[in-house]
Amino acid sequence: MSNTIGVGLVGYKFMGKAHSNGYRQVAAFFPDVALRPVMKAICGRDETAVRAAAAQFGWEEYETDWKKLVARDDIGLIDVSTPGDTHAAISIAAAENGKHVFCEKPLANTLAEARQMLDAVQRNKVVGMVNFNYRRVPAVQLAKSLIDSGRLGTIYHWRAVYLQDWIMDPNFPLVWRLQKDAAGSGTLGDLGAHIIDLARMLVGEITEVTGLTETFIKRRPTLAATTGGLGAAAGAEMGEVTVDDAALFLARFANGAVGTFEVTRFAKGRANCNSFEINGSKGSVRFNLERMNELEVLLDDEMPDVAGFRTVLVTNGNAHKYLSAWWPAGHIIGWEHTFTHGIYDLLNGIAAGVSPAPTFEDGLRCQAILDAVERSAGSKQWVEPEY
Amino acid sequence: MSNTIGVGLVGYKFMGKAHSNGYRQVAAFFPDVALRPVMKAICGRDETAVRAAAAQFGWEEYETDWKKLVARDDIGLIDVSTPGDTHAAISIAAAENGKHVFCEKPLANTLAEARQMLDAVQRNKVVGMVNFNYRRVPAVQLAKSLIDSGRLGTIYHWRAVYLQDWIMDPNFPLVWRLQKDAAGSGTLGDLGAHIIDLARMLVGEITEVTGLTETFIKRRPTLAATTGGLGAAAGAEMGEVTVDDAALFLARFANGAVGTFEVTRFAKGRANCNSFEINGSKGSVRFNLERMNELEVLLDDEMPDVAGFRTVLVTNGNAHKYLSAWWPAGHIIGWEHTFTHGIYDLLNGIAAGVSPAPTFEDGLRCQAILDAVERSAGSKQWVEPEY
Amino acid sequence: MSNTIGVGLVGYKFMGKAHSNGYRQVAAFFPDVALRPVMKAICGRDETAVRAAAAQFGWEEYETDWKKLVARDDIGLIDVSTPGDTHAAISIAAAENGKHVFCEKPLANTLAEARQMLDAVQRNKVVGMVNFNYRRVPAVQLAKSLIDSGRLGTIYHWRAVYLQDWIMDPNFPLVWRLQKDAAGSGTLGDLGAHIIDLARMLVGEITEVTGLTETFIKRRPTLAATTGGLGAAAGAEMGEVTVDDAALFLARFANGAVGTFEVTRFAKGRANCNSFEINGSKGSVRFNLERMNELEVLLDDEMPDVAGFRTVLVTNGNAHKYLSAWWPAGHIIGWEHTFTHGIYDLLNGIAAGVSPAPTFEDGLRCQAILDAVERSAGSKQWVEPEY
Amino acid sequence: MSNTIGVGLVGYKFMGKAHSNGYRQVAAFFPDVALRPVMKAICGRDETAVRAAAAQFGWEEYETDWKKLVARDDIGLIDVSTPGDTHAAISIAAAENGKHVFCEKPLANTLAEARQMLDAVQRNKVVGMVNFNYRRVPAVQLAKSLIDSGRLGTIYHWRAVYLQDWIMDPNFPLVWRLQKDAAGSGTLGDLGAHIIDLARMLVGEITEVTGLTETFIKRRPTLAATTGGLGAAAGAEMGEVTVDDAALFLARFANGAVGTFEVTRFAKGRANCNSFEINGSKGSVRFNLERMNELEVLLDDEMPDVAGFRTVLVTNGNAHKYLSAWWPAGHIIGWEHTFTHGIYDLLNGIAAGVSPAPTFEDGLRCQAILDAVERSAGSKQWVEPEY
Repeated sequence: MSNTIGVGLVGYKFMGKAHSNGYRQVAAFFPDVALRPVMKAICGRDETAVRAAAAQFGWEEYETDWKKLVARDDIGLIDVSTPGDTHAAISIAAAENGKHVFCEKPLANTLAEARQMLDAVQRNKVVGMVNFNYRRVPAVQLAKSLIDSGRLGTIYHWRAVYLQDWIMDPNFPLVWRLQKDAAGSGTLGDLGAHIIDLARMLVGEITEVTGLTETFIKRRPTLAATTGGLGAAAGAEMGEVTVDDAALFLARFANGAVGTFEVTRFAKGRANCNSFEINGSKGSVRFNLERMNELEVLLDDEMPDVAGFRTVLVTNGNAHKYLSAWWPAGHIIGWEHTFTHGIYDLLNGIAAGVSPAPTFEDGLRCQAILDAVERSAGSKQWVEPEY
Repeated sequence: MSNTIGVGLVGYKFMGKAHSNGYRQVAAFFPDVALRPVMKAICGRDETAVRAAAAQFGWEEYETDWKKLVARDDIGLIDVSTPGDTHAAISIAAAENGKHVFCEKPLANTLAEARQMLDAVQRNKVVGMVNFNYRRVPAVQLAKSLIDSGRLGTIYHWRAVYLQDWIMDPNFPLVWRLQKDAAGSGTLGDLGAHIIDLARMLVGEITEVTGLTETFIKRRPTLAATTGGLGAAAGAEMGEVTVDDAALFLARFANGAVGTFEVTRFAKGRANCNSFEINGSKGSVRFNLERMNELEVLLDDEMPDVAGFRTVLVTNGNAHKYLSAWWPAGHIIGWEHTFTHGIYDLLNGIAAGVSPAPTFEDGLRCQAILDAVERSAGSKQWVEPEY
Repeated sequence: MSNTIGVGLVGYKFMGKAHSNGYRQVAAFFPDVALRPVMKAICGRDETAVRAAAAQFGWEEYETDWKKLVARDDIGLIDVSTPGDTHAAISIAAAENGKHVFCEKPLANTLAEARQMLDAVQRNKVVGMVNFNYRRVPAVQLAKSLIDSGRLGTIYHWRAVYLQDWIMDPNFPLVWRLQKDAAGSGTLGDLGAHIIDLARMLVGEITEVTGLTETFIKRRPTLAATTGGLGAAAGAEMGEVTVDDAALFLARFANGAVGTFEVTRFAKGRANCNSFEINGSKGSVRFNLERMNELEVLLDDEMPDVAGFRTVLVTNGNAHKYLSAWWPAGHIIGWEHTFTHGIYDLLNGIAAGVSPAPTFEDGLRCQAILDAVERSAGSKQWVEPEY
Repeated sequence: MSNTIGVGLVGYKFMGKAHSNGYRQVAAFFPDVALRPVMKAICGRDETAVRAAAAQFGWEEYETDWKKLVARDDIGLIDVSTPGDTHAAISIAAAENGKHVFCEKPLANTLAEARQMLDAVQRNKVVGMVNFNYRRVPAVQLAKSLIDSGRLGTIYHWRAVYLQDWIMDPNFPLVWRLQKDAAGSGTLGDLGAHIIDLARMLVGEITEVTGLTETFIKRRPTLAATTGGLGAAAGAEMGEVTVDDAALFLARFANGAVGTFEVTRFAKGRANCNSFEINGSKGSVRFNLERMNELEVLLDDEMPDVAGFRTVLVTNGNAHKYLSAWWPAGHIIGWEHTFTHGIYDLLNGIAAGVSPAPTFEDGLRCQAILDAVERSAGSKQWVEPEY
């Protein structure tokens, strides 16, 4: 039986649930994982809620103070699944305590914080990994493999969107994600960070950007004014939306490729459309998270009568990364499996003493691009990221 | 400039319009056609209507009696675009007058008529061709080319449907297509004939069938009871529907393949879904008339990581039949272009003295299968076509 | 905290892994489940393998004799995830011991066995449920909800295929699934059972069928002749394939609808295409397991300019069954989640003393239809199921 | 019978063929057209070629000097289907001669030329229309109708690409389209003009842009160095590509919407992907020219369980513009039909004395945006169009 590592998780809502599932599932599907996680404690400020989460998600104990959590001797890995404004403090404290850190994306709310976080894991010689989970969709790995092996040739174009529509109702309340203090930014950090990270992994470094941000609905009812739900009474107290509803930018890559990026929460009918297309001199690929088990692939295979994009069902354990752990070909996996894949690689990385990509360095570089887009939107000029 | 041939067309409605367009367009897009058609006369019983059709569709003259038409000296080709109950009489008379015959599908309303028609063209040594126009969709030709060249391997499965929904309203009136005397059968002859012909062209001869037919709405308002449109007043005179609304059958092919066939006018939301899939030992193809410029193609090309159906946009003049006549790759053609292709092949066939497929022999064989399906639906047993 | 029930699972391969996952996950995602499963023991004849499976999948203990398992006092539910030839013996013994039974599909290898199994659970007043897991795809539940609420109107057509391609290589060896003694039948029982069950759930009872079965590759290398894999040396020992490679049949339903069914393992490029279409007087739906988070829906909503099939991403917890347990809208679930859903309903059924559908009665009726198809393929006539 | 107008066409290649077809077909399908075109003369400098074109495409005569053509008394309409560097001279001369003008897109190679052309048609009180033919795809008209009637609500996003791949081979020669003198620009004017025009029609006026242009392959073999085809011998004479291979830009619209635009000839596998998506507060639409008979439509129709994009087959003569002229629902039209629609509207406009949109004013505004994108690509700043 393999060795184990104690895990402490901060956050118990959407991300906490998804991360918990990853720890619970990893060894059942990847029995060769180098370290088996022991789910020691989950942490949150609301004791009633976090106690229930511990019971439901399979944690041995719970904590209500992350400072106690990061100091526990039985824990070797701290998982930071909180809103962005606490990533830096928790991650740095964890690293200072010699814990490995698995941090939700984006790494931080500011570029300065991200630098400090990278410095903390490097100084303390712990593993740091950012959970850009879409890197570990098997179809995305297939795209990477086609690029890395040269089967797409020289890359000319990157074209990505991340489209959602969950705040289009003007009565949707002023939640923390719509306030700059807590969220850092709106769609840019939440959705833009994902597609920037994919672009960096698949195409390469970005050298300059020009962009715009837009807030379509500038004032919304405060949470207090809404009775827990979406409905705001007439005359409800209103507050200012301080983040972007949409962000669009163009980019140049170091390798000569050019790219478009667009993120929005105002694309009616698009629940979770994280989609990209890459065009190279020998082929192209297309991906859409809503059909995440598929990759559309065009290869210049010298049969002009049947040239066309193939719809590849990326479920073949003999040919596709991570899939041999799951089911026979043709049996699709779900969204949360990307977390299990990430945790598998993370645990192997910890065992080997290596930070798996996306590292905190990757997180910092993503942050620098987010920062450049914001500066460009302000200056109305092309801007270079400050790596 | 090439030689010419005078054409006389019987029928001026839906099919008459489509055939007229083919004669008008063929030499503009296929300047190498061996005989240029001269649109001599269009024929119909309603003089006012046929005169207007002649003017609109570009015919020099009109006739109101097909017997006069088939006897004209300036006409070398008779085009029979009438309902099925007149195909035999017109085609046989045309052949007896030494005219070549282009007949709408299905060839006849009965197997006996079809035999007489084949006999007439053979005896009079004229060209006879049936307008199963879907043979000449470029994507269908691509499927044929993949099969004929062995790229799909041994064929195991044929799976075809032709789904429509235009008579689902119970108040839709008792038009001629719903009466056995005029139409011969319902969906079976109208839609089933098309997919039987495609199956024969692509897979081969059918040796036995088992099937059923069904009439979902058994009585409908008479045409007289409806004021020209769909609306039937309460208490309107009703008449019996004497043809099938749907027909389903299974078939065995001479080469060992097995097939399913289904046709219906009761598939809500399916305007014109003439669709098939063929599975062979080395590959598969899928076609749908509603996206007739595409063929989905799966080839066993030994790259398991990118195995998948390709969506081939069949518009490449360098690789796809008939397309060099039209537009650059990526510019799609329309439904009526299949008639132009058929007329192009017909005129070349006449010049060469050869009946192009689908010949009247093909029409007869299709009729024999329609007949076998009807007998099977009655006897509730497997039945062999009487070729 | 809810009450618990001890579970014993027979079988530890593909199905054993999927069922184990269901028991491990159910309470983490459905904390309201009426009985929490305690994973007592997994059972298999190969001690080394079953010990490893117990460790990997999270079972407390293992057994090598199912007779011991079904007699254990700490177990209230026996899960039968073995090949079909042992379903009857294990299920009946479990019921005789007062255990509830969750049995893989098809219920049995013969109609007679199925009758005995139904009798056993009824006589012993235990819950019996068959794992036709595709009933619990949320998109399939949406189809059912549209039908049950009348939004599709009167159902006219059922059209289903289950297409795979994993035995097309003639060198693929003679595994147990290709031998009638163990498997009962080939595609008919393996794949046909699934689409028959869906048809019964969605459209209703089947009154008669006509069909054919076909074995394309009649002799294959024995397992002994292949060195564990696919490769058979020249001159390898060959054995006879005694089951069908494909089965096709037509059916009439009690409510007047007609249906086509086709199952095959010779559809090149189709990994796991379990797909159906239903046409009713007011609407239609289409489903394909390879995109199991989607349902295509056509509703007659009186806006003719925008009539068309909607691609519904069935991931909305506020509108779609089972989804509130998982993730926000737009985050898809995987194939194995259907087992978790089934186990959730099963455990609630046990708590309530009710066998959830598909019950053993449903399993028996499916078996009767499989039996009728086989008889029809032999007699070449329409045959009625012997319910 | 309606009145007639004599037509003279300059240009006989790709566009000349498509325009000729429009004149030949318009009255056969739109018998209510207010003026029937008489195809007087086609004009080109190569007498042999233009004579053949006249014969093939159905023109009464040919000319080799456009100055003679625009002066003919029997001609009332001049159609300018030449490369962009001659649009201004021919159009202005035609207008000065009192002829109506139908000019290919983009209107001119420079903003100054476009202004002169607009001035000429206004001063001479003739009809001027630019052939942005994609306005007259029925699916595009459906999008417009949904927007104009408010069914999409407030428009937030425009997202368009026009992707091709026909010059990706580095040995593809230096044709006129790759030289700034003749073509004005590369993809920007050729493809960008189309999607700018669609954006203006569908969303509204553009107020500012930021963009980039890129030339991936900067030197190519001269036409002289290639033997008529693609192959360039080693050591072939090379010339500089003086236009863009790709152009990307962001835009703000006067109504508050934001947009992305991308055009390229380096998107491997994309033959003719002119595609857009529009997101409004109540709905969204998606279009792709390669499936030009379809529009994907999402409407917020308050049935959350079936929310999803509908694939509308835009072929219903009772509900969709231009379609009643063609075939029954479900029978698709081809690319060239957009020209027939444009000519139908043009001829009706001439009869009514009104320039149909897109007018020369529309052409000028498009030109101003192209000009702004080029200036922005140079200055690396946001730029306003100089209308």
